Amino acid sequence: MTLYNPDTIVAISTALSESAISILRISGEKSFEIIQKIFRKGKKLEDYFDISKQKSHTIHFGYIYDGDQVVDEVLLFIYKKPNSYTGEDLIEISCHGGVFVTRKILLLILENGARLAEPGEFTKRAFLNGKMDLAQAEAVADLIKSKTDLAYKASLNQLEGSLSNFIRCAREELIKIISLIELELDFSEEDLEFIKKKDLKEKILELKKQFNKLLNSFIEGKIIRDGLNLVIAGKPNSGKSSLFNVLLSSDRAIVSDLPGTTRDYLQENLIINGILFNLIDTAGLRFTKDEIESEGVRRSYEKIKEADLILFLIDSTESISDIEENYNYFTENFKVENSILCFTKTDLKMQISFEEISAKKGIPVSIYNLDLVDNLKRIMVEKFSYLQISQYKSELVLTNIRHKKCLEKVVDSLDKAIDSIDSGMTGEFISVDLRNAANHLGEITGEFTNDEILNYIFSKFCIGK
Amino acid sequence: MTLYNPDTIVAISTALSESAISILRISGEKSFEIIQKIFRKGKKLEDYFDISKQKSHTIHFGYIYDGDQVVDEVLLFIYKKPNSYTGEDLIEISCHGGVFVTRKILLLILENGARLAEPGEFTKRAFLNGKMDLAQAEAVADLIKSKTDLAYKASLNQLEGSLSNFIRCAREELIKIISLIELELDFSEEDLEFIKKKDLKEKILELKKQFNKLLNSFIEGKIIRDGLNLVIAGKPNSGKSSLFNVLLSSDRAIVSDLPGTTRDYLQENLIINGILFNLIDTAGLRFTKDEIESEGVRRSYEKIKEADLILFLIDSTESISDIEENYNYFTENFKVENSILCFTKTDLKMQISFEEISAKKGIPVSIYNLDLVDNLKRIMVEKFSYLQISQYKSELVLTNIRHKKCLEKVVDSLDKAIDSIDSGMTGEFISVDLRNAANHLGEITGEFTNDEILNYIFSKFCIGK
Repeated sequence: MTLYNPDTIVAISTALSESAISILRISGEKSFEIIQKIFRKGKKLEDYFDISKQKSHTIHFGYIYDGDQVVDEVLLFIYKKPNSYTGEDLIEISCHGGVFVTRKILLLILENGARLAEPGEFTKRAFLNGKMDLAQAEAVADLIKSKTDLAYKASLNQLEGSLSNFIRCAREELIKIISLIELELDFSEEDLEFIKKKDLKEKILELKKQFNKLLNSFIEGKIIRDGLNLVIAGKPNSGKSSLFNVLLSSDRAIVSDLPGTTRDYLQENLIINGILFNLIDTAGLRFTKDEIESEGVRRSYEKIKEADLILFLIDSTESISDIEENYNYFTENFKVENSILCFTKTDLKMQISFEEISAKKGIPVSIYNLDLVDNLKRIMVEKFSYLQISQYKSELVLTNIRHKKCLEKVVDSLDKAIDSIDSGMTGEFISVDLRNAANHLGEITGEFTNDEILNYIFSKFCIGK
Repeated sequence: MTLYNPDTIVAISTALSESAISILRISGEKSFEIIQKIFRKGKKLEDYFDISKQKSHTIHFGYIYDGDQVVDEVLLFIYKKPNSYTGEDLIEISCHGGVFVTRKILLLILENGARLAEPGEFTKRAFLNGKMDLAQAEAVADLIKSKTDLAYKASLNQLEGSLSNFIRCAREELIKIISLIELELDFSEEDLEFIKKKDLKEKILELKKQFNKLLNSFIEGKIIRDGLNLVIAGKPNSGKSSLFNVLLSSDRAIVSDLPGTTRDYLQENLIINGILFNLIDTAGLRFTKDEIESEGVRRSYEKIKEADLILFLIDSTESISDIEENYNYFTENFKVENSILCFTKTDLKMQISFEEISAKKGIPVSIYNLDLVDNLKRIMVEKFSYLQISQYKSELVLTNIRHKKCLEKVVDSLDKAIDSIDSGMTGEFISVDLRNAANHLGEITGEFTNDEILNYIFSKFCIGK
């Protein structure tokens, strides 16, 4: 199991589409040597320029060459180890931001001896070289992906080390306790007691309380980070795409009077009161002979299963019997906790009264009545008001499922330790449980880790980070 | 008319989507002062760092602050005037490449006194500060947009100054001639002749020949730069989307057995022998009652009008009468020069023989027969073989319509000068025509320009360049 591969790696670190600037990043032992071969300060091949003799953190204008052909005018950013993002010798090339040009330079660097970096490999090296711990590295990916202020603040906090500090302090506390128990074991023949079993149990319970508090923040943290999946469902032509558009105040979905217009599902982000809703417009729920559309319907059911919140739409201009049929379908298939029943098109000739809508615990919706739309938005936020996430002020929040799993194992080990104390077991047993707890804590910050865990974590990164 | 606005401008210079790095660029008199307010070297607000005292072309790690809140960890690239892209004091900020974070920093810089840069405004300043001429500036935009090796080489050549040098030499030659004529005018009382009218005319004709050669390269240049628009047309279910996919070797278009599957047109780039084809799959050409599809059909006709080359598809498994009807439609509506008649589905039960296809000057095509597909590709390239652009080796090629228009005016003025010589006009008249020619040449490199021209040119740039 080799954690560290000292190859020289390269990747395009900016998003690859037409833009003013693209950045390529090269890191590793041979990065200076490789770029030396293809970079010149001037328009002559003889304009030799010794990269290794330059100071760290300096910028140099020049030309990238492929043989004797100029490829592009570039800026070279030189970072010498250990003062770089990865801790290795690192070069960034700022070139003209075209897709074609950038790829051409990438190929050239690959031909000259670098290897294409895996996703997150630069950050992985930063972790392995002690530039940041694992929880901080994970925060880098979250920071890039953040779409709301809350998500951004949570990940920035984690990057700045707030979670790591908490974990590290708790772990030190635990190790202090373990050392007292193990000291006792060393002096077991003399029957000394360095810590009373009652005090020991209290200390463990106190730690467990803190971990549980952090664990409880996970649902909130997950929603802060990933947003809520909100699916708009209902029979064809119940007004799903129109509502989707009004909620987004845009014309993202193609709307027409023909039932079955939305063949595939559409997804867009909507932010209300700092909460990110992943808004999903689905194909109408009906049996269809249209091959393309039926694939869409299958996907609709899939999306409904994954939803955190469902807006179920019933067209209030349909016949009473159709409305009843739809309503029965709704009550049989959906839960009150995570769905909102909307009676649409209330600006048209309704076949159901506002009183009946209210009796069915539904709400009236018309895309031409912005008060009703605002009311719907308010109810959407209310469904999650227990989260109180709009009050979130840089407290510690658990956003990462890996951290959650580690913490659950920590709590589990602490529970075992308490059991051992309660059943009068010897220090050896208690010590083993507490050591397990400490190791699982260490997995969060990466003090204990293995290649598999690292590969899993960094595979979710962007290329070039 | 103010060509130069000394405001401090800011823009995001990398493509804005989730990526490892984003770059913001700030240029102008106050760029150091503005960043000074929001950048600190350390994690304390007191960690003051005097940007103006740093050396040019140096890199500094630190933190962007919004009040007392850290916004992101960043790298600061400092460039001091005149040694920057724009020739002004310039700073680049390399931050975590998230859309949210990058926008947040952009807003912060705007709040602190910078103005959002217009497209191409950094390059416009580079031009106005004499860092490059206008033709070179235009090459920057072309370089970024280039999709093939030919387009890239043509724009790189132009950026390196090959067009500018040619124009400048020709212009100097012209001015030398003008000065001889005007010298004659000064000594008109003494009846001196500094240049014989016959020699004068020869010199002008020689220049005109060079300009015409360059003008003739324009069609080639345009195709090198922008590619050929290739439209796939034909009745519904004639196999347009299948052919589109096979040509692209991908599954870009949704294919089904149902006629009318392609509702809108699809566009993809295909490169064969270095020629860029903008491949366009259209909705089938038929009268349709489907509202969505009929909009697609309208767009198909639009695309066919703009096409450089049309592949017209006839399903060879249709009845003889349908095939004849299609064939007549083709011969009535399309020209041989810019269309290729394809009889598709030749792997199925054909209602027309290969001999008849050949007699109709069509070619057989089956997506399951790669030899036939390769044959089609060969014919596509052949249609433009007179361009010989695959032999293109960094010769001067005119790619820009603005340059073409200027050159046409130059040639026009030279023609007038020749007329004046032939009709025995005095030097004053010849001189005026030649001065016009010189000015139009100067418009290409920007020696003569105005705000309107500059705004037009730079509005086509990316933001941040």
